[in-house]
Amino acid sequence: MNISQKSGFSEETKLLIIHADDAGLSHSENMATIKALETGMVNSYSIMVPCPWFYEIAIFARDNPHIDNGIHLTLTSEWENYKFGPVLPVSEVPSIVDENGHFYRNRKDLGKNGQPEDVRKELEAQIEKALKFGIKPTHIDCHMYGVGANPEFFKIYKELGKKYNLPTLVSEDLMTMIGIDPELHLEEGDFIVDSAYCADYKDFEQGKLADYYSNIIEHLSEGLNIILIHPAYDNHEMQGVTINHPNFGSEWRQIDFDFFTNAENIAKLSEHNIKLVTWNDIKIGKVSMKIYSKS
Amino acid sequence: MNISQKSGFSEETKLLIIHADDAGLSHSENMATIKALETGMVNSYSIMVPCPWFYEIAIFARDNPHIDNGIHLTLTSEWENYKFGPVLPVSEVPSIVDENGHFYRNRKDLGKNGQPEDVRKELEAQIEKALKFGIKPTHIDCHMYGVGANPEFFKIYKELGKKYNLPTLVSEDLMTMIGIDPELHLEEGDFIVDSAYCADYKDFEQGKLADYYSNIIEHLSEGLNIILIHPAYDNHEMQGVTINHPNFGSEWRQIDFDFFTNAENIAKLSEHNIKLVTWNDIKIGKVSMKIYSKS
Repeated sequence: MNISQKSGFSEETKLLIIHADDAGLSHSENMATIKALETGMVNSYSIMVPCPWFYEIAIFARDNPHIDNGIHLTLTSEWENYKFGPVLPVSEVPSIVDENGHFYRNRKDLGKNGQPEDVRKELEAQIEKALKFGIKPTHIDCHMYGVGANPEFFKIYKELGKKYNLPTLVSEDLMTMIGIDPELHLEEGDFIVDSAYCADYKDFEQGKLADYYSNIIEHLSEGLNIILIHPAYDNHEMQGVTINHPNFGSEWRQIDFDFFTNAENIAKLSEHNIKLVTWNDIKIGKVSMKIYSKS
Repeated sequence: MNISQKSGFSEETKLLIIHADDAGLSHSENMATIKALETGMVNSYSIMVPCPWFYEIAIFARDNPHIDNGIHLTLTSEWENYKFGPVLPVSEVPSIVDENGHFYRNRKDLGKNGQPEDVRKELEAQIEKALKFGIKPTHIDCHMYGVGANPEFFKIYKELGKKYNLPTLVSEDLMTMIGIDPELHLEEGDFIVDSAYCADYKDFEQGKLADYYSNIIEHLSEGLNIILIHPAYDNHEMQGVTINHPNFGSEWRQIDFDFFTNAENIAKLSEHNIKLVTWNDIKIGKVSMKIYSKS
């Protein structure tokens, strides 16, 4: 039986989570995410607890517990002028911040400097803060897959999923994309999604983001799939946040919003026998996840 | 001799600082403040160190030390969905934060709960953080005049000005406006501005903000005056920040920007014998301040 069958669907059914990352980052990101959840095909999102607009999206999450929402564990702060850092005091997690008390801008610096115990403390604090605000998370995932910066962080990430009984985004695709070897860092019994999709800078640069997404939908495989997107409005604020950083920049995020709220694109889901499922479906056992096996 | 004469001007010259509060609050506020400094008649501003967009404006301040900039000491966070709190860990200043670790929304709750030693620690930490970022402040003032929430805070505020050798916005007008008695809480020898102007909600509500500002310029007295404004662009972000809070809201801030960058209004300064001076002029002794006397 494949995952689709195990989840009660036909063998050919393609299961898909369309997931908005980065809620809490900015007002633009929050409003576009909410709109895409309410009117588009996006059906799950996750929240960056350390970010300036966390409170706004936390209120939304608390007031809309029926909408799948996770915690977008955050260990990096990639923007030029718009910065954020740990929810814990800097003095308690000194190895994961730069000289200004902000997260490092990339996985490389995080991996080089971060001490696993600081990473564990900070990630737990982010989950605890979300819980304290009344959020009932359906899953955890990770901003820029920063937990992949170091295999020990990755282990902590998986442990936190178990500790809090939260499905955790683990994917061979994402691991490979950021350069950690699934063969070395997945264990027998780990739950993984079959395929995770996230656009690459070249798709955006060549003006082919929408083509990239269309292609995924048209050629999706059966089993459990996830598309990671970053919807936001390409406005003054978002241009300020992402200045000099077109990779996952403001323009890119508007394209994400437009594609996944477009009625013609939404219609393609049923045309291609795609069934939207959520992290909560996984959490409550309604949808199965693949179990990693070395063999 | 009046203050104008002591500062080397004719007796009738009106000295004026046009001051933008709240830099650092948002990208909109930062960009409008910079534009108003560069192309308008605004000639000084101050920075909210605990706010999400601090880093962006700190870089501007560091790179533009010739433009008067102060520290807008912050002890309140008045907005509904957009929150900020102390730069110190919450556990070090527990009396000045609400249950979520954010500053209180108003002076009343701050005054009721805040312990003077927590206020002192936090305000010092804000100044120290600004200095660490390479800002060379010309003055200190205070967001929502929160230091007026309690006479002991007000004393600390004046002491910090002396400690850091920074001119400090002290004004009988502002004290009266927020309900602390200048007779009781000013001491002989305190430096004060002659008149401080800040629009009131009724000016905005009645559509008379621009009239209020015109009237100040047309009827200014000699001596040292300051107008406190809050320029920002009335856009998606700023509307999100100030949602359900038209008092000093997004629309108000656009009016401030428009008035103080308007060429006809700028021309009125010389027509009315108004000379723009800065906090730095005061700091270096080029412009005198009135010395408070009980008599």
